[in-house]
Amino acid sequence: MKNFIGIKEMSKEDIIGVLDTAKKLDNMPEAEREKLLNNKIVTSIFFEPSTRTRLSFTSAAYKLGCHVLGFDNPNMSSVVKGESLRDTIIMVSAYSDVIVMRHYIDGAAKFAEEITDIPIINAGDGSNEHPSQTLLDLYTIREELGSLENKKIAFVGDLKYGRTVHSLTKALKMFNGEFYFVAPSSIQIPDYILKELDMAKIKYHIHNDYKDILKEIDCLYMTRIQRERIEDIEEYEKVKNVFSISKKDIEGKCKEDMIIMHPLPRVDEINIDLDETKYAKYFKQARNGIPIRMAMLCLATRIIKSSVNSKKIDYKIFENNKVVCQNKKCITHFEETKNKVAKRDYGDFCYYCNREIK
Amino acid sequence: MKNFIGIKEMSKEDIIGVLDTAKKLDNMPEAEREKLLNNKIVTSIFFEPSTRTRLSFTSAAYKLGCHVLGFDNPNMSSVVKGESLRDTIIMVSAYSDVIVMRHYIDGAAKFAEEITDIPIINAGDGSNEHPSQTLLDLYTIREELGSLENKKIAFVGDLKYGRTVHSLTKALKMFNGEFYFVAPSSIQIPDYILKELDMAKIKYHIHNDYKDILKEIDCLYMTRIQRERIEDIEEYEKVKNVFSISKKDIEGKCKEDMIIMHPLPRVDEINIDLDETKYAKYFKQARNGIPIRMAMLCLATRIIKSSVNSKKIDYKIFENNKVVCQNKKCITHFEETKNKVAKRDYGDFCYYCNREIK
Amino acid sequence: MKNFIGIKEMSKEDIIGVLDTAKKLDNMPEAEREKLLNNKIVTSIFFEPSTRTRLSFTSAAYKLGCHVLGFDNPNMSSVVKGESLRDTIIMVSAYSDVIVMRHYIDGAAKFAEEITDIPIINAGDGSNEHPSQTLLDLYTIREELGSLENKKIAFVGDLKYGRTVHSLTKALKMFNGEFYFVAPSSIQIPDYILKELDMAKIKYHIHNDYKDILKEIDCLYMTRIQRERIEDIEEYEKVKNVFSISKKDIEGKCKEDMIIMHPLPRVDEINIDLDETKYAKYFKQARNGIPIRMAMLCLATRIIKSSVNSKKIDYKIFENNKVVCQNKKCITHFEETKNKVAKRDYGDFCYYCNREIK
Repeated sequence: MKNFIGIKEMSKEDIIGVLDTAKKLDNMPEAEREKLLNNKIVTSIFFEPSTRTRLSFTSAAYKLGCHVLGFDNPNMSSVVKGESLRDTIIMVSAYSDVIVMRHYIDGAAKFAEEITDIPIINAGDGSNEHPSQTLLDLYTIREELGSLENKKIAFVGDLKYGRTVHSLTKALKMFNGEFYFVAPSSIQIPDYILKELDMAKIKYHIHNDYKDILKEIDCLYMTRIQRERIEDIEEYEKVKNVFSISKKDIEGKCKEDMIIMHPLPRVDEINIDLDETKYAKYFKQARNGIPIRMAMLCLATRIIKSSVNSKKIDYKIFENNKVVCQNKKCITHFEETKNKVAKRDYGDFCYYCNREIK
Repeated sequence: MKNFIGIKEMSKEDIIGVLDTAKKLDNMPEAEREKLLNNKIVTSIFFEPSTRTRLSFTSAAYKLGCHVLGFDNPNMSSVVKGESLRDTIIMVSAYSDVIVMRHYIDGAAKFAEEITDIPIINAGDGSNEHPSQTLLDLYTIREELGSLENKKIAFVGDLKYGRTVHSLTKALKMFNGEFYFVAPSSIQIPDYILKELDMAKIKYHIHNDYKDILKEIDCLYMTRIQRERIEDIEEYEKVKNVFSISKKDIEGKCKEDMIIMHPLPRVDEINIDLDETKYAKYFKQARNGIPIRMAMLCLATRIIKSSVNSKKIDYKIFENNKVVCQNKKCITHFEETKNKVAKRDYGDFCYYCNREIK
Repeated sequence: MKNFIGIKEMSKEDIIGVLDTAKKLDNMPEAEREKLLNNKIVTSIFFEPSTRTRLSFTSAAYKLGCHVLGFDNPNMSSVVKGESLRDTIIMVSAYSDVIVMRHYIDGAAKFAEEITDIPIINAGDGSNEHPSQTLLDLYTIREELGSLENKKIAFVGDLKYGRTVHSLTKALKMFNGEFYFVAPSSIQIPDYILKELDMAKIKYHIHNDYKDILKEIDCLYMTRIQRERIEDIEEYEKVKNVFSISKKDIEGKCKEDMIIMHPLPRVDEINIDLDETKYAKYFKQARNGIPIRMAMLCLATRIIKSSVNSKKIDYKIFENNKVVCQNKKCITHFEETKNKVAKRDYGDFCYYCNREIK
């Protein structure tokens, strides 16, 4: 069995394997596709709401012939009776052929993987990983720009807290991209990511206005600025308006084949007058969630076997009961876990939530 | 593709086409029926709860072999992240072969129809339209009284606010009925509906007690008086008791083949001692929601083609940015819509919510 | 049609019939099994949340090829519009081939059975009955201990309020077991159950520490002590710790083939260090819910006919409008029911909620 816990655990070959599988499934005749996972049971356990991700996984599962059960409202679940995540995972394993799991705690998916033999697909664990989002982003870039190699990509918006941007950066790093980080300083990209890029000898640029670089880039990746992330309301109002684009800002001012992406939902970042332009790929991007999630379901259940399967382990595990992860939202503080440290060349990291341990 | 937005957009032939299709599906062998929409995906998006309508559409979809996904709890959906209805519709279109939609805003379904190419079935939009309810009412009358033509129908209860009664009146008008509106004056049928009946030369009568007309009518259509609609509690208590019927009120006092209908849920309007009588058709009426909704799903997806398809357009559209719909619950005040006015012989109407524009 | 309302209505032969059917279904090839209830519609109406039971029934239904619809959030249902349970049952009967029902009111399932011809499976009605739980407990004991006859079983925890323990005791009584009731006096087993055991000449023992009897028993059945049941917080804290077990409490101190069971969810009653031991059968027990619920669905819909069908009626019904059930949580106080008394040799009982009427 193969689990999808995070992009960090995938090699370049793994990623290409998923994208190729997605492409194959997207082109497969319906009648053939819906027999692939005929009558398999997908359990979708969402400990926090995420309608888009849940519906997209459900639709993908149906297109493969699966049944889907689960919950998306934790208040309604046994969780309120004080059940541990450990026991919930064991319980639903008895009902399922594959588990799609969303949780608000960092490292929850990694923990679940240890508990059960049923394949686990992480549909987001706190601020840690959300691999199906990153994979559909990569799929979109490859589909729309022809390849993943050597692309110039600008990320605009909340780069400090945006899990989407962090994961996509880490993935694209393997494909030798060049990055432009466009944000006000208070929500710019974290230093540790820049260090990782330095180590990998990837070029990047820091900006606070996308207009400066619009002519150079292949992809403008917009993200939502979450009001709740910025404490100062005045600053929010200022920032909010700077980082929104409309037709007049883009047309005639960028490369002709530049694409605009957004993980959605958008609020004011992209004016609807852009929706009909050739640049707008964000709805197509959302739609690409279907083939990607079909591919993840097929690979996780081993119905389709990836030609490569080089699960990337760039660390050694040490168990050390004296080491405590400093991330207060890490699963190690909520469940009875082993105290595992992932030792890498460049530091010690929590095995579950991937935060550096100092 | 064909959308079901409202009864107002259906001709007499359209209506008969749906009822005939429903009848055909109701008589079709199960094994044949469940192949009709095999593995199609129905997305059911309910922005306000309506268990009865949701379960009925879901059951109809299953009987046709569909998968069903969606949400019925808007607090749990991306809506709370501030997503527009426009974007939600585009998103779910990527996952769906047909969309069943319930919304609390008038005109939401008409707006959705503009956004997507996926067929839209309106399962209720605010106080505007709820076509599957009206069609199942018509189906029940035709089944139980043999035809829709020239029937004498009394509506009892909250006639001022009752969307069900308004829509059914408009539909039956095409079949030359005679109407009895039975309600206390504070919740009697609105004048504009009476004007429409006058224009169509339809006979009607205003009453405040059903007993006066019980001997004359073919159908007694009871409705719930919603406590929340009547501000004066004393008035509510008075009205509540007058407009409830039991066995002793009916038996021997009406035509032998009179039928009693109710859109359900009932509270005190119909005593349960009537349930076992030959007059009671309200549960059969609810059951008729299944063939009607199967018909709507088959016609919307074009699996069954209606012999006639004369979508009724009795208006010309004018776009006028200066015209603003006065209905505060109209979709034009919540989403970026065009400002469309439907110009009819007898007035100007909002294209989305159907309210007259003065 | 056959309903599953309660263990009290099942004979020894009925119970064995369900367990044998479950075993047969568990061993049946998937491809054959999923045709048994192909395209039948199961409606799952949960008037209070119970994720575990709901998911288990849903998974069982899918494995038989069913569709599943329903609700598990009563706030979202028509119930809030003031609909009676009677009308809800009639409504969902129109959509369903079988109804799985959970309700917070005692006797709700018995009442539902009177209202509809569609098979009813009780998934728990208040503190009254929860037959699928008892049946999966029995299945587990038979599977793990080889038979149900003459077993020595200790129940530990909240024996006063625990519906699980009461039902299982009543069932095992038919198989000539010997019982050990282990609880602090404030939450010990009710006297009326002891009287029933006396009448049936079943041996039992009262204890307040499981350690005293660990060497003698075949099965240690742990239950959760619900904080909300014990008013005195100090007493809760005291009791809580006494009635939890871990590896060191069990290993080497019990029969080698003793089994530990628990209806789950657990809180602190069983330390996770026991999970990997040979004694731990509680997760297997949860998994046994799938074959048992498949069996209930097949027997209720008559797809599989039980070789025996000796519905146990050990009472005569009297209708008496002067008799009122004293149980304030009984369905007779919430719905318009007949006033039925079940007259047994040893007393008069409410027909719906099974409480003695004095």
